[in-house]
Amino acid sequence: MNIPSRLVEDAVNELSKLPSIGKKTALRLVLHLLKEEKEYTHSLTNAINTLRNNIQYCKKCFNISDTPLCSICSSATRDKTTVCVVENITDLLAIENTGQYNGVYHVLGGVISPIEGISPADIKIAELIAEVQAEKASGEKIKEVILALNSTMESDTTAFYITKKIKPYNIKITTIARGVPVGGELEYTDEITLGRSIIARTIYE
Amino acid sequence: MNIPSRLVEDAVNELSKLPSIGKKTALRLVLHLLKEEKEYTHSLTNAINTLRNNIQYCKKCFNISDTPLCSICSSATRDKTTVCVVENITDLLAIENTGQYNGVYHVLGGVISPIEGISPADIKIAELIAEVQAEKASGEKIKEVILALNSTMESDTTAFYITKKIKPYNIKITTIARGVPVGGELEYTDEITLGRSIIARTIYE
Repeated sequence: MNIPSRLVEDAVNELSKLPSIGKKTALRLVLHLLKEEKEYTHSLTNAINTLRNNIQYCKKCFNISDTPLCSICSSATRDKTTVCVVENITDLLAIENTGQYNGVYHVLGGVISPIEGISPADIKIAELIAEVQAEKASGEKIKEVILALNSTMESDTTAFYITKKIKPYNIKITTIARGVPVGGELEYTDEITLGRSIIARTIYE
Repeated sequence: MNIPSRLVEDAVNELSKLPSIGKKTALRLVLHLLKEEKEYTHSLTNAINTLRNNIQYCKKCFNISDTPLCSICSSATRDKTTVCVVENITDLLAIENTGQYNGVYHVLGGVISPIEGISPADIKIAELIAEVQAEKASGEKIKEVILALNSTMESDTTAFYITKKIKPYNIKITTIARGVPVGGELEYTDEITLGRSIIARTIYE
């Protein structure tokens, strides 16, 4: 696309580096900004800059937070003896949205991937083990670690690695249930999922 | 969605004011920015702010431009006697991309819409008429005005209004061809389009 303004072109190029935003969408966003008041552009860029400069991560679970300890870790009503291990913050938010979980979290910030050069040292596994050890030493110890990871090969490797590391501490390790989704049809469910859902069948009540 | 950080929430709220960006997409963009280097966020916001503060519009055709006169209006090779009237800059860029047009443009910046309270005075119609008059007075006069507007009721009203205003100047007024799109199937073309394509049939060569 031949854009007749260097300024517009620069903004389009920067915006189209964002995921799922191509040149056409970027141009539409830019033209929208030009139509709106200047104040909106300023409050938008201001919010983004402030966020990027001042963001903090919870020093315990690595959730995004405005305080050193996030609202979940510092809540008195959350069960600190159950830790749910997730790959990233969006997964944490997804579980929080279900309203079904009252424990705390541990955000890994990725999964082990030899192909992409991500080793166990690059994600927050050591911190999880340290957490498991530390809690064990204090009075309140972690009783259960839930692995809420995705179903990829990398995630499976990560789950296996974490399990091996945590085993010595005699803590219950669980993983989220895999099976036919609620509302899903058996006919269209892939064989692996359907197979697993039969093996891991539960008592009907 | 319950976001555990005020900073993230602010950025998500601002971003989701953009067209076609909902809360979920905004959150994904924000988390992407957090993962990337700070420099990217700064160059992004900088490009947007610079654009918004310094953007200019061509004083002749109202195209976006970094100079008082846009690259099309100031080009020596473009035919200044043919003016293509478009609703907005994206339409101009779309026509430019075809490579089929060598005249100049006039960007209206919208269409007449009584429902939305947009009167002829709110869009650049007076400027178009002035242009038609001015060129007539000088040596090089406008010979043809092409109406390249959309097919909505508002666009039709605008086209009708412009035609009425330009008629006294004895200038050829044309409109882009309506018909079955190239690659389109007759079976799935709506009746109005198909009807028009028969009435406006051209000699097969």
